[in-house]
Amino acid sequence: MDTFLTNGRSVLLAYDQGLEHGPSMDFTDRNVDPSFIMETAVKGGFNGVILQKGLAERYYDGNVPLIVKLNGRSSLPKGEPLSRQVCSVEYAVSLGAKAVGYTIYLGSSFESEMFAEFGRIQEQAHERGLPAIAWVYPRGAAVQNDTSKEIVAYAARAALELGADAAKIKYTGDSQSFSWAVKSAGKMPVFMSGGPKAPDDATFLAHVAGAIKAGATGLAVGRNVWQNPDPLAMAKALRSLVIEATPQ
Amino acid sequence: MDTFLTNGRSVLLAYDQGLEHGPSMDFTDRNVDPSFIMETAVKGGFNGVILQKGLAERYYDGNVPLIVKLNGRSSLPKGEPLSRQVCSVEYAVSLGAKAVGYTIYLGSSFESEMFAEFGRIQEQAHERGLPAIAWVYPRGAAVQNDTSKEIVAYAARAALELGADAAKIKYTGDSQSFSWAVKSAGKMPVFMSGGPKAPDDATFLAHVAGAIKAGATGLAVGRNVWQNPDPLAMAKALRSLVIEATPQ
Amino acid sequence: MDTFLTNGRSVLLAYDQGLEHGPSMDFTDRNVDPSFIMETAVKGGFNGVILQKGLAERYYDGNVPLIVKLNGRSSLPKGEPLSRQVCSVEYAVSLGAKAVGYTIYLGSSFESEMFAEFGRIQEQAHERGLPAIAWVYPRGAAVQNDTSKEIVAYAARAALELGADAAKIKYTGDSQSFSWAVKSAGKMPVFMSGGPKAPDDATFLAHVAGAIKAGATGLAVGRNVWQNPDPLAMAKALRSLVIEATPQ
Amino acid sequence: MDTFLTNGRSVLLAYDQGLEHGPSMDFTDRNVDPSFIMETAVKGGFNGVILQKGLAERYYDGNVPLIVKLNGRSSLPKGEPLSRQVCSVEYAVSLGAKAVGYTIYLGSSFESEMFAEFGRIQEQAHERGLPAIAWVYPRGAAVQNDTSKEIVAYAARAALELGADAAKIKYTGDSQSFSWAVKSAGKMPVFMSGGPKAPDDATFLAHVAGAIKAGATGLAVGRNVWQNPDPLAMAKALRSLVIEATPQ
Amino acid sequence: MDTFLTNGRSVLLAYDQGLEHGPSMDFTDRNVDPSFIMETAVKGGFNGVILQKGLAERYYDGNVPLIVKLNGRSSLPKGEPLSRQVCSVEYAVSLGAKAVGYTIYLGSSFESEMFAEFGRIQEQAHERGLPAIAWVYPRGAAVQNDTSKEIVAYAARAALELGADAAKIKYTGDSQSFSWAVKSAGKMPVFMSGGPKAPDDATFLAHVAGAIKAGATGLAVGRNVWQNPDPLAMAKALRSLVIEATPQ
Repeated sequence: MDTFLTNGRSVLLAYDQGLEHGPSMDFTDRNVDPSFIMETAVKGGFNGVILQKGLAERYYDGNVPLIVKLNGRSSLPKGEPLSRQVCSVEYAVSLGAKAVGYTIYLGSSFESEMFAEFGRIQEQAHERGLPAIAWVYPRGAAVQNDTSKEIVAYAARAALELGADAAKIKYTGDSQSFSWAVKSAGKMPVFMSGGPKAPDDATFLAHVAGAIKAGATGLAVGRNVWQNPDPLAMAKALRSLVIEATPQ
Repeated sequence: MDTFLTNGRSVLLAYDQGLEHGPSMDFTDRNVDPSFIMETAVKGGFNGVILQKGLAERYYDGNVPLIVKLNGRSSLPKGEPLSRQVCSVEYAVSLGAKAVGYTIYLGSSFESEMFAEFGRIQEQAHERGLPAIAWVYPRGAAVQNDTSKEIVAYAARAALELGADAAKIKYTGDSQSFSWAVKSAGKMPVFMSGGPKAPDDATFLAHVAGAIKAGATGLAVGRNVWQNPDPLAMAKALRSLVIEATPQ
Repeated sequence: MDTFLTNGRSVLLAYDQGLEHGPSMDFTDRNVDPSFIMETAVKGGFNGVILQKGLAERYYDGNVPLIVKLNGRSSLPKGEPLSRQVCSVEYAVSLGAKAVGYTIYLGSSFESEMFAEFGRIQEQAHERGLPAIAWVYPRGAAVQNDTSKEIVAYAARAALELGADAAKIKYTGDSQSFSWAVKSAGKMPVFMSGGPKAPDDATFLAHVAGAIKAGATGLAVGRNVWQNPDPLAMAKALRSLVIEATPQ
Repeated sequence: MDTFLTNGRSVLLAYDQGLEHGPSMDFTDRNVDPSFIMETAVKGGFNGVILQKGLAERYYDGNVPLIVKLNGRSSLPKGEPLSRQVCSVEYAVSLGAKAVGYTIYLGSSFESEMFAEFGRIQEQAHERGLPAIAWVYPRGAAVQNDTSKEIVAYAARAALELGADAAKIKYTGDSQSFSWAVKSAGKMPVFMSGGPKAPDDATFLAHVAGAIKAGATGLAVGRNVWQNPDPLAMAKALRSLVIEATPQ
Repeated sequence: MDTFLTNGRSVLLAYDQGLEHGPSMDFTDRNVDPSFIMETAVKGGFNGVILQKGLAERYYDGNVPLIVKLNGRSSLPKGEPLSRQVCSVEYAVSLGAKAVGYTIYLGSSFESEMFAEFGRIQEQAHERGLPAIAWVYPRGAAVQNDTSKEIVAYAARAALELGADAAKIKYTGDSQSFSWAVKSAGKMPVFMSGGPKAPDDATFLAHVAGAIKAGATGLAVGRNVWQNPDPLAMAKALRSLVIEATPQ
């Protein structure tokens, strides 16, 4: 994961929402354009950018380390969530990826299929010297509250046990409960998931500060940056908070 | 996709309806004959013809660039739509294909299976230097209106994210809403799906004009050409509108 | 398909009913014995014999061209029909097959699985220079009437589109409606399925005559031959009607 | 199958009940020990012993020809029966197997999966010169009476059609009806399944005699031997009846 | 299994609960840390430590023989239990594993899938000279009481039949009934599963003594060690009871 760290910390720019939520849910005329995001990634000094293969293939220019998401789904199908591999590790490497990402819906009735697929991907990635990052999102009829202390810690721990090189998990809402997730993750770096646009910047930055205080390595953020009227200002605030500040 | 472009635009002739809808739904004594369609493709100056492997194997004569559809289904089974691969990329190449096509039913409960299969096909096609074109049709119990601005844009974006070299999507009904789909598709060319025979030629041509005005690269049209009493006249009108006219 | 044609026509002897229907449904002490069928195939001058791998392995003697059925099912399971591959193309070749057969239940909720499997088989067969013949039987809850003009034509067309070298389909009941199926099949030869024993020979021969008049290449017949008190007489009548008569 | 025949007849000792039914259902302190069964197989002069891979690996000593069962299931799961491959042909050979066995639940809604798996196994076995024996047991909601004349004959015929080198099927209850199953099996040897312990030896031997009279090659027997107070006496009686007696 | 035995006996330290139950169910600030467990394993003189691949990759130091669990699931999904392979045998070996473990939920409606997967793993492990240990847990709607004499013996026997080199099974509650499971396991070593933390040490040690008296080779214990206020004292007690004591 060193490629993606500055002072042992990291702010990653996520931009797979076009597939996961659809353009009409999250995008404007400005941020619907992947070029705008690539530009933001570079100018904002992000430690990495996260793209599906299609965006990487057409827009990635090598100016910021690339993480290719290997699976994805639309938000349309009802029922238990399943996200299957749509890009091979080999193909991701050919696109310039320095790491691969994969989403596991912990608790889904299709959990076992994603566990097995991530298991193969993790090994293929390690054979090529790439980190395999797990997005672990508890979801499905069996999951009541996907940001409880217990379930977020479970997500972190599952990633550790399955051999992920880092986990992206939701924030619990406060630093103390999140620190249990970080502890459950052991030596594995934890990234806070940025999530939907917060009502205001201060709220979001307080969450980030809480995650960092709890021991998170950083965050993977999308909407709270590129839906921000001033993405670069937010990027600067995040860099300052995550990378430059002395952890409290 | 250059093989299929003239002045950066394209009119493709689609003829996979025999499998998708059955001959009794769409065909007459004249257009049930694939030779008639091949003749129309050449005389009509189409930029490409789209066939299932069986028709390509028996009727394709090399006089117009070939796109082989790699999956298909009949219209008979009830329940959530699933269309599986029936032709390998390698086999399509052996039949003379210069591109391959694949249908994804976005929102189907089998979406993940088609995502995964297209993911593999896209990589195999690119290994051989062939474009992989995605037909993205939102369908299934989760989809209320498959021509809304939002859902059509989602279809376009999904194709971009999954690495398609072009997408064939439905028309939204007006140019302005369709332009959001084109924008969501980024650098990826968008083809309007011709759809069922329009009540009259003027209506159809107005839709095409709307799509082109919105930024579409062209269209893939079947029934509105070969169900037309004068297919070559319609072909000429389309060429004129799509390729020769200055975009408005 | 030339191996199986005389004057461009063909009468094939089918004998896979032991698996499809069970011996108690269709067989007597005489025709339960595959040796009797092999003898009938040779003496009756059939253009080919259709067997499952097990019968081919134990009884086939090389005296008539062999078609090995690659999939099969029993009649016992309820629910939507699925017939999976039980013999590889390579194994069929090792048994002496000059063509392979595969049943597709068009309209079944498992249609996609059979489409995909036939897709692979068709390519493997063609690699070895063997025709792949599709039995296309519309069946399942979605199919109301499996001998309507529309559904039989759909079956024929699906076979053509999927790259079959010939299709075996049910007779519609009259020559005129069957001719639409033949037309829908284009250049692909169509074989009428013999079906269950007709009430009398004249009825059956009238059906065959109707199919031939409609343009069928021939028929694949089982029960109407080997359930006949005089199989060789029936064989002779069929040869006369299908192969020796001048098409009307 | 010659390895397993004496005078063209055969008595096989089956001992896979530990997996199929569990030890508490069928075993005592004596016969729970596989060493006891191996000893019985040798001393009893059986033509072969049938074991799962685990027993073969730990107990098989080479003193009697070995048949390794390649699939298995416990009796616990409810619903339609499915038994999947747990041992490869290659591995069975490495354990000393001279034949492989596989159970097909004819009529199960998973029938197609077992048909397909047996299809692959049969070919792999034949590549290595091994017979593939099919246990064909009609079972599942679609099967009313698994020992009727019709259903037992169907089981035998299915094995023949699928290329089995021998079939193990249930006894119908009388010799005349069982002879239809033997006839339906054609040239393929038929083994009567011993089934649960009969109320007394005479009843069981009468069934065996009936099967032999009907043309069976022999039987595969487990519980009626090793649940017998004197297994070797029963073995002797079976040898006498099956192998040494002149068929009536 | 010799690597894991002392005087033919064995006490293994299990630590896969982070994945199976989640950190909040079983862990404290102390034992959530895999380093603490590794230290306990070494200082406690355990014969082996059982880890998922992720923990092995980050924490294993080679000071105690390693068993890598090859499958796993979270406790969240409802419905019939299924645990799929998440680590290859080859990868486990690369992490230093001297044996591999796999959980089979006997009686689950997914039993057949786990049987088949374990079947492949067992062969791959043996090719590399590694033991394959089966955790056999009867579970699912079909299982009423997973610690009855009959069901525990079934679990042991299933492992033997499937070729496991050892089985980890639940304790029945008393030595006499557990001895039937040991007997059913034949020559295959049986490990008692430690299970949840017993109300007091004496109760747990009495269970262990009962298992050993019944003929168990040892136990695989987690929570009763690392949830104990003094894990090393418990380890010492177990070593004394299992390894150093003369079996009664």
